[in-house]
Amino acid sequence: MSTTTQGRLFGVGLGPGDPDLVTVKAVKIIEAAPVIAYFSKKGARGKARAILDHWISPDTYVLPLIYPLTTEVHFCDPAYVDQLRDFYTEAAETLASHLMEGRDVALVCEGDPLFYGSFIHLYIRLKDRFKVEIVPGISGMSGCWSAAGMPITCGDDVLSVLPGTLDGPALMRHLLVCDAAVIIKIGANLGKIRAAIIEAGRLEDATYIEHGTMEAERILPLVEKHNDSAPYFSMILIPGQGRRP
Amino acid sequence: MSTTTQGRLFGVGLGPGDPDLVTVKAVKIIEAAPVIAYFSKKGARGKARAILDHWISPDTYVLPLIYPLTTEVHFCDPAYVDQLRDFYTEAAETLASHLMEGRDVALVCEGDPLFYGSFIHLYIRLKDRFKVEIVPGISGMSGCWSAAGMPITCGDDVLSVLPGTLDGPALMRHLLVCDAAVIIKIGANLGKIRAAIIEAGRLEDATYIEHGTMEAERILPLVEKHNDSAPYFSMILIPGQGRRP
Repeated sequence: MSTTTQGRLFGVGLGPGDPDLVTVKAVKIIEAAPVIAYFSKKGARGKARAILDHWISPDTYVLPLIYPLTTEVHFCDPAYVDQLRDFYTEAAETLASHLMEGRDVALVCEGDPLFYGSFIHLYIRLKDRFKVEIVPGISGMSGCWSAAGMPITCGDDVLSVLPGTLDGPALMRHLLVCDAAVIIKIGANLGKIRAAIIEAGRLEDATYIEHGTMEAERILPLVEKHNDSAPYFSMILIPGQGRRP
Repeated sequence: MSTTTQGRLFGVGLGPGDPDLVTVKAVKIIEAAPVIAYFSKKGARGKARAILDHWISPDTYVLPLIYPLTTEVHFCDPAYVDQLRDFYTEAAETLASHLMEGRDVALVCEGDPLFYGSFIHLYIRLKDRFKVEIVPGISGMSGCWSAAGMPITCGDDVLSVLPGTLDGPALMRHLLVCDAAVIIKIGANLGKIRAAIIEAGRLEDATYIEHGTMEAERILPLVEKHNDSAPYFSMILIPGQGRRP
């Protein structure tokens, strides 16, 4: 009869990009875990790996989980969903094999693991089989409003976080009822997002940020962003105007 | 002619409560700053100070900024706003006097400085006179959804952060249009908040959390919270149900 104690799974947020914006707890887990896994795209080391490189010890076993596709198949295509599902299931089984053999596994990811994170897809496959501990990370949006020196919410402000993948009318409706807004997942959606912001009368308050907290950081009023070309991990911030005694 | 170089102001987030959930950057600044200020209530050390105690060196000058009132005056009373305004102005001048003499000042606060933080009130008074650097912290809500192991948003989910101080109909309207919700500033508002959640048909999905990430942490389904007594820094989380391949 096996007496192996199962390993624990750690979901570790690495924050928005600056390696010093990881938590002390994350560093402790990264230093101690025998296996560290991270998501990346084919042919790119990715942001998680870049942050990780600052904190990892040389003898740690590092396990990249490589997405099977990037842009060859559109994300509305059922084939995309199928491929992703298979990928997540296979990745979960890879982590499970280490956990079954008693090794702790840290799955590290940029930002905050349970806030729009790919970690979620492995977590829901593994959480009933293994002990899991989540270590929150500084979200990309928090890194961005801090870098911009922008008080995002005050007093009774309502903040809405809006994926730029929503359709224009939906974006506009949400922008009309919230005080502060963070629009994420910009990429190819910038033209549509800009139109919704204008229609909601919020253009003057909007700030565009790309590569927040990193060397390539760029922060400018949206009105001064004169084209609609943006990286996926850019963001638009609209601050609230709540009570300020 | 004075040649003193002005000090820099750091706004440093300390995270949700667990001392290991501060960032490496925050620790570096706390270790180096000659003056560290924090907000607290009269007669209580407060959460910021409790976290700070884990990281501060014994010879640092620590400057508590004590709120002039707690519950003697209702926050809708203009006298409350006046007193708070005077307090923030005086506190800003206290920090300014150190900065003018060339000493760096770290104003530390629980959570994330620019996200509903009291730091904002000193920041807007000082940012045009001194160099300021913001160090984001893990927000209370991120600490809570991580402690609860709850994926809060996925795919195209819209998240709304709702202060429990809003009136019932406003809370209800927001709950009807968002996918995920975080309701903060619960305290005496729990009865009203619960009614709005029920009216919006979201009761079954709601989780109540108090003292998240700390020793006294308590996490339970809102349906199992049988009274309306809650500390101010409790929270209600309703997760989104976005695309999960």
